[in-house]
Amino acid sequence: MNFAIVRYIIGFLLQFEAGFLILPGIIGIPYGEAFDSITYFGVALLCFLIGKLLSRKRPSPFELYTREGFAVVALGWLILSMFGALPFVITGDIPSYIDALFETISGFTTTGASILSNVEALSHANLFWRSFTHWIGGMGVFVFIMAILPLMGGTTMNLMRAESPGPSVGKLAPRVKDTAKILYQIYIGITLAEMIVLCCCGMEFFDSITTTFGTVGTGGFGIRSDSIAGYSPLIQNIVTLFMILSGINYTAYFCLLSKQFKEAFSIDEVKWYLLIIFASVGIISWNIHGMYSTIGETVRHAFFQVGSIITTTGFATVDFNAWPELSKTILVLLMFIGACAGSTGGGIKVSRIIILFKAAHKELSTMIHPRLVKKTKMDGHVISHETLRSTNAFIAVYLIILFASVLLISVDNYDFTTNFTAVAATLNNIGPGLELVGPTQNFALFSPFSKCILMFDMLAGRLELFPMLIILLPSCWKKY
Amino acid sequence: MNFAIVRYIIGFLLQFEAGFLILPGIIGIPYGEAFDSITYFGVALLCFLIGKLLSRKRPSPFELYTREGFAVVALGWLILSMFGALPFVITGDIPSYIDALFETISGFTTTGASILSNVEALSHANLFWRSFTHWIGGMGVFVFIMAILPLMGGTTMNLMRAESPGPSVGKLAPRVKDTAKILYQIYIGITLAEMIVLCCCGMEFFDSITTTFGTVGTGGFGIRSDSIAGYSPLIQNIVTLFMILSGINYTAYFCLLSKQFKEAFSIDEVKWYLLIIFASVGIISWNIHGMYSTIGETVRHAFFQVGSIITTTGFATVDFNAWPELSKTILVLLMFIGACAGSTGGGIKVSRIIILFKAAHKELSTMIHPRLVKKTKMDGHVISHETLRSTNAFIAVYLIILFASVLLISVDNYDFTTNFTAVAATLNNIGPGLELVGPTQNFALFSPFSKCILMFDMLAGRLELFPMLIILLPSCWKKY
Repeated sequence: MNFAIVRYIIGFLLQFEAGFLILPGIIGIPYGEAFDSITYFGVALLCFLIGKLLSRKRPSPFELYTREGFAVVALGWLILSMFGALPFVITGDIPSYIDALFETISGFTTTGASILSNVEALSHANLFWRSFTHWIGGMGVFVFIMAILPLMGGTTMNLMRAESPGPSVGKLAPRVKDTAKILYQIYIGITLAEMIVLCCCGMEFFDSITTTFGTVGTGGFGIRSDSIAGYSPLIQNIVTLFMILSGINYTAYFCLLSKQFKEAFSIDEVKWYLLIIFASVGIISWNIHGMYSTIGETVRHAFFQVGSIITTTGFATVDFNAWPELSKTILVLLMFIGACAGSTGGGIKVSRIIILFKAAHKELSTMIHPRLVKKTKMDGHVISHETLRSTNAFIAVYLIILFASVLLISVDNYDFTTNFTAVAATLNNIGPGLELVGPTQNFALFSPFSKCILMFDMLAGRLELFPMLIILLPSCWKKY
Repeated sequence: MNFAIVRYIIGFLLQFEAGFLILPGIIGIPYGEAFDSITYFGVALLCFLIGKLLSRKRPSPFELYTREGFAVVALGWLILSMFGALPFVITGDIPSYIDALFETISGFTTTGASILSNVEALSHANLFWRSFTHWIGGMGVFVFIMAILPLMGGTTMNLMRAESPGPSVGKLAPRVKDTAKILYQIYIGITLAEMIVLCCCGMEFFDSITTTFGTVGTGGFGIRSDSIAGYSPLIQNIVTLFMILSGINYTAYFCLLSKQFKEAFSIDEVKWYLLIIFASVGIISWNIHGMYSTIGETVRHAFFQVGSIITTTGFATVDFNAWPELSKTILVLLMFIGACAGSTGGGIKVSRIIILFKAAHKELSTMIHPRLVKKTKMDGHVISHETLRSTNAFIAVYLIILFASVLLISVDNYDFTTNFTAVAATLNNIGPGLELVGPTQNFALFSPFSKCILMFDMLAGRLELFPMLIILLPSCWKKY
């Protein structure tokens, strides 16, 4: 391990966090939240000073291998959250540091699982910061840094790979820096579009900013305890639309922007993603009909919840824990499927599910026709042996973490559905699960030990598992 | 598809079933169950006649490819169960044919999931047949036929592969026929040993036969509604021992018999299997202490339930659904792990779990040391690319069947834990699950549709998934 380079980059990261922390401080001023504003400015200063100290000397040689890339990202996200949690504790809105850390990790990882029972009690500065973490984490904080700074020359691909969701990093441009820039341009574009549309439809400005952060980052923190249920049907439908748009592979938007319309509409993953959404909405609407007064309302709620869960956002307009078991089981399956690779959403990702199905189908075909040589394809290209191997390794590691976590939090003695969906909701970066962690409940009930497990799951889920596991291996920390 | 060969072998199978069906008929005579005896003799005659008709003409050429091998085994097990269910319906003990079929498939697949609430109401002939199906299915009915008849020359490997549990068929002898013979010799040896020991410890003869069938076949049908709870602690401990012995890879016994002691005690899978058992017993004993009066009783129950679940037997001495969540979660994990490959047990198999962990660890190591070339080994041999690929394909198909089944049976609107563990208990051939399908409950509550799904899961689990899937593909049935 090249410790110097890890220290240096994390120093940079903290200086950026200082910049982010100033925003909620400013937001607090017009609302008269003086103490909150000072707190945010103070923590920002602290971050800046520590960051400056750590990044004093640029290490040489400046080479970032996979190991360092993954370690920087994993530690970086952890440290980012550790400092980000401070204002919640200092302002007194979340007195326990473990709880504040849970909330902040949940924010940065765009999970949206909360330990708060009364969100409305928070100050505007805290509410803004809570939602803003979603936006920072959504596209990735290192991707952001790379888009702005010519930080590390040619070896930044290992940072990007650790932070970008999906089995492979779609290179939109030959240079990593340009790819990062394009991603953030699209991201900001969608953000502004939703904010403006929500304002135009009568949502208050503050609400529209925070809701937009929660939507485009596929996070799910709302600023009301009833999530999005209290807003008008029109606003709910707009949020549904933007959630589903945020779960689409950003490569599609890039193709659209560069006028490659044929390519944009021929991405297999996006087609399956939309197909799964429409099929789920169809079945759930049929299953829950009678629970709501009109067909329109039924379909609206079905669409909202399906969009919220498959994109791993986690907003809610109804208590879907009260839905029939078939609908709930569909939602649990959608939790695991997740959004498209290369979007801001979490979960296993639609493309990996496609690869799994295709591999299974190929295995069966080979048994029937042993001499048939058939290549498995996606988007017209043969799925490489490398992609298949890494997908299988991902699934193996995913299952190990999933079941180990369920086992570890079962010590708290809550029921199996609660434990299973709590892990599913955090590992897939969704937010609410079922039963005691259902959409009207929260995660406060768990012990500090279980909260730590779930925090690990949130980080592991957001960073595609491997970075978080690598820093646990002693051999990762050996000096060269 | 070579239909002639499928027809021919299934004809043979039915003649063998006729032979099996005579036994419960004989058992019924001393108990004065005349109608039951006549029923069994009648069904036996029917099987024999239909079997004779189907296998009239030996097809030529006699070549059995993977496709035919898998189709014969899948259809064979289904037809075996369809005829085996008839006596239950005719004698009136299980009036509904769907229920009788569920019970019979549960028997042959050594699942032990029952739809009966009062087992004691069955006649002795039916009780014997119910347990005897476990014994027939445990080691495999085609393996049995192969051990006796020089049925198909050199192409029988494809039958054996479809019916033997585990990622690869351990060839104990150069010829398939000899391997089948050795397996059945060991199987009969363990059966006789348990039967004699149980009789010596004061168990009634009829009870000892049926309990032994349920143990060595890792089935789990008992002849009492309280399973093994009513027997003495000594008998419970003996059953525990034989359950655990039955879950061990039969290659170990073969090594012992052929005096290869070093090989017998150096099988990685067996070591891990025993380690998992002892670790689980330790944690559960600690977790449930205080629920029973003495430490001895606590450990006895923990050992029994752990042995019963990991070997996928499904006997019970206590209602483990009343245990704390940690213990229940351990049992759910053991359901998935299952016994050793090459034993009579079900589940994913310990060896596949080891392969998954090793593959995951290798992936992580490669990320830390990209230039390190490390071969993954088991039992001192490198795990082949082929084994890894087939394990990954197995896991993919396993997950697809698991979640699709949970989704389909959720239509009945029972809770998630019930549905999830019902599928886990059938797909892994265990028997009881948790909540509404817990050890004191039964599967009668499900709709006929859900019962069909669970029957498919039992067969898929017993036949290692692929045979049952292949016969669902239209391309499997195309003529050459």
